[in-house]
Amino acid sequence: MTLDAVLNRIDEDLPQSLDRLMSLLRIPSISTDPAYKADCDKAADWLVEDLKSIGFEASKRPTPGHPMVVAHGGEGDGAPLLFYGHYDVQPVDPLDLWKTPPFEPELQQTPNGQVIRGRGASDDKGQLMTFVEACRAWKAVHGSLPCKLTLFFEGEEESGSPSLIPFMQENAEELKSRIALICDTSMVAPGVPSIASQLRGMLKDEFTIVGPKIDLHSGHYGGPGLNPLKEIARIIASFHDENGRVAVEGFYEGVHEISDELRRQWENCGFDEKAYLEGAGYTQSSGEAGYSTLEQQWARPTLEVNGLWGGYMGAGTKTVIPSEAHCKITCRLVGDMDPTRLREKIRAHVEARLSPDAKVIWDQDLDGSPASVMDITRPEFEKARAALSDEWQREAVFCGMGGSIPIAGFFKEILGMESMLIGFANEDDAIHSPNEKYDVQSFHKGIRSWARVLAALNG
Amino acid sequence: MTLDAVLNRIDEDLPQSLDRLMSLLRIPSISTDPAYKADCDKAADWLVEDLKSIGFEASKRPTPGHPMVVAHGGEGDGAPLLFYGHYDVQPVDPLDLWKTPPFEPELQQTPNGQVIRGRGASDDKGQLMTFVEACRAWKAVHGSLPCKLTLFFEGEEESGSPSLIPFMQENAEELKSRIALICDTSMVAPGVPSIASQLRGMLKDEFTIVGPKIDLHSGHYGGPGLNPLKEIARIIASFHDENGRVAVEGFYEGVHEISDELRRQWENCGFDEKAYLEGAGYTQSSGEAGYSTLEQQWARPTLEVNGLWGGYMGAGTKTVIPSEAHCKITCRLVGDMDPTRLREKIRAHVEARLSPDAKVIWDQDLDGSPASVMDITRPEFEKARAALSDEWQREAVFCGMGGSIPIAGFFKEILGMESMLIGFANEDDAIHSPNEKYDVQSFHKGIRSWARVLAALNG
Repeated sequence: MTLDAVLNRIDEDLPQSLDRLMSLLRIPSISTDPAYKADCDKAADWLVEDLKSIGFEASKRPTPGHPMVVAHGGEGDGAPLLFYGHYDVQPVDPLDLWKTPPFEPELQQTPNGQVIRGRGASDDKGQLMTFVEACRAWKAVHGSLPCKLTLFFEGEEESGSPSLIPFMQENAEELKSRIALICDTSMVAPGVPSIASQLRGMLKDEFTIVGPKIDLHSGHYGGPGLNPLKEIARIIASFHDENGRVAVEGFYEGVHEISDELRRQWENCGFDEKAYLEGAGYTQSSGEAGYSTLEQQWARPTLEVNGLWGGYMGAGTKTVIPSEAHCKITCRLVGDMDPTRLREKIRAHVEARLSPDAKVIWDQDLDGSPASVMDITRPEFEKARAALSDEWQREAVFCGMGGSIPIAGFFKEILGMESMLIGFANEDDAIHSPNEKYDVQSFHKGIRSWARVLAALNG
Repeated sequence: MTLDAVLNRIDEDLPQSLDRLMSLLRIPSISTDPAYKADCDKAADWLVEDLKSIGFEASKRPTPGHPMVVAHGGEGDGAPLLFYGHYDVQPVDPLDLWKTPPFEPELQQTPNGQVIRGRGASDDKGQLMTFVEACRAWKAVHGSLPCKLTLFFEGEEESGSPSLIPFMQENAEELKSRIALICDTSMVAPGVPSIASQLRGMLKDEFTIVGPKIDLHSGHYGGPGLNPLKEIARIIASFHDENGRVAVEGFYEGVHEISDELRRQWENCGFDEKAYLEGAGYTQSSGEAGYSTLEQQWARPTLEVNGLWGGYMGAGTKTVIPSEAHCKITCRLVGDMDPTRLREKIRAHVEARLSPDAKVIWDQDLDGSPASVMDITRPEFEKARAALSDEWQREAVFCGMGGSIPIAGFFKEILGMESMLIGFANEDDAIHSPNEKYDVQSFHKGIRSWARVLAALNG
């Protein structure tokens, strides 16, 4: 009954909610460009004022970069829930590809429904405001918030979050909570509510194959002289077998097959494999045989080459046997794969395959992070999934994420806190690109979703 | 008797011969740098005057670039002998690595004997003057030249010879001769007189592997999406088998094994394989099994990768699956290998190995040239070899050349004329590098060698 009242209030208040989002979108808080420093500050101020109007104790907190916004509110037993979002946005170039000015947001009618057009509409101002609006409606109906809440917004997510870890370390006691709710992700398919429950880790490495001590003339040394370009090609070709599996010994240690229940959810989540591949210009999956594209993206590790270079790259021809060839790789990690041990295995694989007269030099300054696999047996996850399924009238899925979302790892490491990533963006939102948009449906049902999740987590 | 008189004259005149070379070396005739245009002209004038002083009818001949020098002299039956050289030199940078100024040549004593130090001392002013000085001595002793001679010097060899082919075409009748003598090569080993009788041809090609239609995020498409960098590595790795042989079908068509006599000459020519490889930082040959380094360099074809690039090459990491990867290759051709058919075979090899969703784009503007194999059964070759063996008291060898020497091909194509390449440079002359030198022994015995060759060819 009371949840219904909150949902009704959300429906009635939608025009005002959109107006508020519009005013936040008008602030060009581009964090990476120093020219917009004052605007980042202004966006933080806007949030502080808005949160105060709902009854939060909110403050702007200085950092060496852009400020954090931290707000506390609500009452009740136990630790608070934490909600995380970011108020900074990506740069807008190329500006000439925008059909309407990026910081003059507007509602537009499209063949797929009404959208909010403007930089940050989806990433992440529209998404973070879904939670703020849910709190506002709850407060309006009940006169109080559903439980103790901590809201935590940063202004440097799009510029590498340099202040985030030190701030979390310095304010750990203040930020520690039951669980972190994060609204910065997409739905698996339009209309399919999604909780990201496994995030892949990453390992970066870079190596140089060194052959002759100087660049040589290929008319003289071509043939008898080891060519680092041929050597590096042979080594890269050895990374995978003919079935697309990584051929590095022990690579799959710590990888677990997904449960039948998760596979069932994924098979029925509405992900259109054909359209996904065709969108990139592919007619088929070229990856690991026996796994669907979605399984490969969410639950299987990869070893990819991201950069490869050596020799002469200009116009025309230079008859050179170069002294060096270079390769950058990244691996995506799943399950319990250990980045440190994996790095050793990859390096051993390369070293075991070196020809006489070839040396390998490894780049020294590269990091790795393990995968984050959420404990979905915790009751919050199933409660949230049920709440989302109710709102969207479609079974919510525990999905994976192909990319990395460092914040969830930081919450775990620094604050010892699990994260639940629930987002309402769609793949076609054009985040980081011209003409970014957020569906009004995402915004509206997003607010309603958070109201239901808050009710479920405090039921 | 008369040859002995000429040789004596050469010995007596050596100080003056060196003085003349020094004055030519003082002219900074760097052809590639427009700042030295007047100096190129001055070097041509110097040669015209010097040749006139020997009795040649010599003239400076304009071209759109630097002038040619053409001189005719001598009398007798039959077609003349042609001698080719170039009076232009390489740039001198890095200037700070020169121990003495590049255009202030001097005689220096070194542990390996006396040298002439300066830009162009070896390449090619010192070498071309060996022939001019032989003519001078002959004329001084006999009052006439040994036969009809045409001397042909260009001033653009170090800057791509843009005027050479048109000039040869326009003046074909004037230049056509019995045979072309060229002095622009090295000896196989110090003190081993060498006639280059087989020059490898060259085929250039470049290809791009195209995968997805745009650069993709490797967190999303890594795995299922075809990666052009992995694709190009696999294709390059397929170019050779485990024995270092090129694995392109039909690649060795037109390749002939060398004769036992040539192999014997090469095995005994004083080439130090170990020192040659160690000089480049190698401990062993990595090439085609069953062939010596010298055979590989002179008589075996190669397929080498000279450039390879794609994806992110900057500092740090970019998690990208690039849309394209690029590769530049060159082949060295021997025997009767046909560049046009070989190009088709290589392209077919690549195309047959493409994965689904990979395309290949071939660069369109690349040329190829077949190998030049001299007809060493012509009597001039054996006569010259005997003359050189007499002078150096060491069996002269018919050697190959790993690199390409386009002039020999042009003489054949445009003037229908065989070339005999006899040079006295040494591998340590540092041509194209700081501190270029030419051994006084090379200069002195080079002059004597030409006197003997001229006598032998006119005996």
